[in-house]
Amino acid sequence: MRVRYGETDRMGVVYHGEYLAWLDEARTELLRALGYPYDRLEAEGTGLVVRKADLRYRSPARFGDDVRVRVTVERVRGASLLLSYRLERVGDDHHLADAQTELAAVTFGLEPVRPTPIPEGVRRALEAAISTRDADA
Amino acid sequence: MRVRYGETDRMGVVYHGEYLAWLDEARTELLRALGYPYDRLEAEGTGLVVRKADLRYRSPARFGDDVRVRVTVERVRGASLLLSYRLERVGDDHHLADAQTELAAVTFGLEPVRPTPIPEGVRRALEAAISTRDADA
Amino acid sequence: MRVRYGETDRMGVVYHGEYLAWLDEARTELLRALGYPYDRLEAEGTGLVVRKADLRYRSPARFGDDVRVRVTVERVRGASLLLSYRLERVGDDHHLADAQTELAAVTFGLEPVRPTPIPEGVRRALEAAISTRDADA
Amino acid sequence: MRVRYGETDRMGVVYHGEYLAWLDEARTELLRALGYPYDRLEAEGTGLVVRKADLRYRSPARFGDDVRVRVTVERVRGASLLLSYRLERVGDDHHLADAQTELAAVTFGLEPVRPTPIPEGVRRALEAAISTRDADA
Repeated sequence: MRVRYGETDRMGVVYHGEYLAWLDEARTELLRALGYPYDRLEAEGTGLVVRKADLRYRSPARFGDDVRVRVTVERVRGASLLLSYRLERVGDDHHLADAQTELAAVTFGLEPVRPTPIPEGVRRALEAAISTRDADA
Repeated sequence: MRVRYGETDRMGVVYHGEYLAWLDEARTELLRALGYPYDRLEAEGTGLVVRKADLRYRSPARFGDDVRVRVTVERVRGASLLLSYRLERVGDDHHLADAQTELAAVTFGLEPVRPTPIPEGVRRALEAAISTRDADA
Repeated sequence: MRVRYGETDRMGVVYHGEYLAWLDEARTELLRALGYPYDRLEAEGTGLVVRKADLRYRSPARFGDDVRVRVTVERVRGASLLLSYRLERVGDDHHLADAQTELAAVTFGLEPVRPTPIPEGVRRALEAAISTRDADA
Repeated sequence: MRVRYGETDRMGVVYHGEYLAWLDEARTELLRALGYPYDRLEAEGTGLVVRKADLRYRSPARFGDDVRVRVTVERVRGASLLLSYRLERVGDDHHLADAQTELAAVTFGLEPVRPTPIPEGVRRALEAAISTRDADA
């Protein structure tokens, strides 16, 4: 994805708060690539919410940079999904940041929100992605 | 409201795209001040959506500035509401921007969304605000 | 560009405040397509700032939508540039919104910011784009 | 601080990516309360950049909620500052999230950015805040 002007701050680099939206976009692409677009998951009653997010910023991204996010499925278990991310600048593969998020599957549209098992199909596709390999966004 | 660091861009000033969120916050405060908090409007089935927004940027806002948004009710009619805004820096009243938004009342939570008259109570409060005066946020 | 989850609001549609960043991205692509990437303009001392922005929202965009922004160069004059935009959903070309922005060329990095003529090369490329045709992003 | 409409997503709750900006705002208030406003730090040549951010989301925040961020100074050392945060809903003190950020002091405005000791005055004020107590924002 390409850095937008509004994502920079007055230090001239990408504001650190924007990275969580990039991880989200990478997850969305991962699910799409696995054949389970996230909007369909929600339409079928399951949402994925972020429980934990850990970010390590290594080197700033700048306006005009193209950024690649490599997503690795670390663990799928019941209602929980652990993903890790490596952010690199496209072109020179410069290492920008690492991150990890733990997601919980929840009933979508219900109040109060409750944990629910990750649907069978997605779970299997995610498990297959663990053994085989990463997805890029 | 006070300018956040993430709202600046690499020109060192507030990114022009942030202003729409400020206008929104000013509207929210206006409705609250009139006794009709926006979340209650939605809970009672009416949403307000932006149909038109016109912005005139005069002078940049910076990190650390406190910004005042003066809202004026220009017109209330059926399902439509016209508001204008004047943004100033607190302290020296420096004129930062002007804006105008036209809002439409719609059924909240229904698909497809449909225009609906602005509920009686809010409408009257807004009309009273026209004759009397501005609200500040 | 593809709608991000964080760009939606609790009405389930894209928050109206996000559109200004999309217009910005479309401008950036236009300049790149013309051979004058915006970061190079800034590096050479000229910034483009938004003076006016007018938006007309016609139909909501949703998570998962791909959105196309058609940019038209309306006028180039001295230090001023007028662009118009048509936003459509990719796939069915559904008309989402129209917009217009007036930009001013300013000295980049100087305080206070001052108007400056749009550099010769970009100006000519933009003028050529008026007669010939639109650029898509 | 009060939740803005644009900060919600289509699950009806605050988008998880917005929290980093809230932590930032809480830091800004902490520095101001200690007598070292962040914009003055930058003006005097020192920036603070986020190196690590860890977030634990416990309970969703909603539009209309007022959110309190309690900041605790955990450690100040050379060019590095460790802060932890507890986010609560105002009114019922409902626990929304916890977070921790590690910040590095860097030369502001220089390229490439380099680590620099936290200026004496701020460092002492931060150290005093460790022994004494939290700051609220």
